[in-house]
Amino acid sequence: MEIKILKDILGANEQIAARNRALLDSNNVFAVNLMSSPGAGKTCLILETIKRLKGKTKIGVIEGDVSSSLDAETIGKEEVPVIQINTGGECHLDANMTHNALNNMPLQDIELLLIENVGNLICPAEFALGEHKKVLVSSIPEGDDKPFKYPLMFHEADVVLINKIDLLPYLKFDTEAFSQVIKGINRNIEIFQISCVTGQGIEQWVSWLLTQTSQR
Amino acid sequence: MEIKILKDILGANEQIAARNRALLDSNNVFAVNLMSSPGAGKTCLILETIKRLKGKTKIGVIEGDVSSSLDAETIGKEEVPVIQINTGGECHLDANMTHNALNNMPLQDIELLLIENVGNLICPAEFALGEHKKVLVSSIPEGDDKPFKYPLMFHEADVVLINKIDLLPYLKFDTEAFSQVIKGINRNIEIFQISCVTGQGIEQWVSWLLTQTSQR
Repeated sequence: MEIKILKDILGANEQIAARNRALLDSNNVFAVNLMSSPGAGKTCLILETIKRLKGKTKIGVIEGDVSSSLDAETIGKEEVPVIQINTGGECHLDANMTHNALNNMPLQDIELLLIENVGNLICPAEFALGEHKKVLVSSIPEGDDKPFKYPLMFHEADVVLINKIDLLPYLKFDTEAFSQVIKGINRNIEIFQISCVTGQGIEQWVSWLLTQTSQR
Repeated sequence: MEIKILKDILGANEQIAARNRALLDSNNVFAVNLMSSPGAGKTCLILETIKRLKGKTKIGVIEGDVSSSLDAETIGKEEVPVIQINTGGECHLDANMTHNALNNMPLQDIELLLIENVGNLICPAEFALGEHKKVLVSSIPEGDDKPFKYPLMFHEADVVLINKIDLLPYLKFDTEAFSQVIKGINRNIEIFQISCVTGQGIEQWVSWLLTQTSQR
């Protein structure tokens, strides 16, 4: 019974996600669903991305949080369109919440939409939003065992950004082993090593984003 | 309709949690529900706790993960009774999973039960397991804005352990402001600053645990 309810919820979500995708495509918007644990650096990454892509592509942002509008306020200072979704307890964004946000986003004025999901390595992996790519931010302090514990998230991601590599000297984290395990779960995954603090690797990431956006 | 289902689930969970609590009490076992983001240091904390309390109290461990038995294998080396729960996709432990684990735990032979919940700052806060105290491990690299984004978790916790304070020199984190915000959400909360790597603050934590355990 519980499984049936979950299937119904996921099925309905897929339908709305397909409509979101069609809406994005008709406006030539490339959309990325950014997922991670709490505090892995999604908001900082969005800020760095906006700074580097200013004048190169037009960005919009959807911020997802259980509570607060802290991130939307931070992003809003960069003078890009931003919509905050508060899930009010739900541990992930879903297609319907995203649909409501898209209705309030000037889609004809943007080319790249960054959707920051709720900080959670589990449920967001199950709920499509209509995005073109799923990007997982995985940070060094979380430890290199996370793919074993949250395999679905690593399986679903198109890109993994290994963030906070500036902290490598102070922590045990085997980047090579981590990358091998991820590729074992998901052979076609793209991996970038980045630091939003030092800027290392951010050029490669925004270059990938720009290529994807220009292909829409 | 969805809200009604959630209420039913939570109501049924509370009933089983009350039974778990009675079972723990009848065996004079003090139980702690350890919660945190992925990679905040729960397993490392359990290891340090076991090492320091060896010969002082008898410990059992329940390990909760979506997938893998990595943590149970690590803890098992310390020669304490350990049960791994794999939730198979569920983003939190619930009272029923805990009940099944308790049935396989030699309760008459332990005095302190450490339950490591699934790494998630959202849903575990809603599901009582029958524990006596909820302990939240919040680590420095996650950032000091987490109480604003995950208020329920900080509201429900009895204790917050600020972990990885050895990384303070390398990160922006205002410990004083963080503590003030938490106390604003939850006036009676106890806060310890710890590092599982350097051992700082661990004595105070195990001393608190030992006092609680001896009061059963």
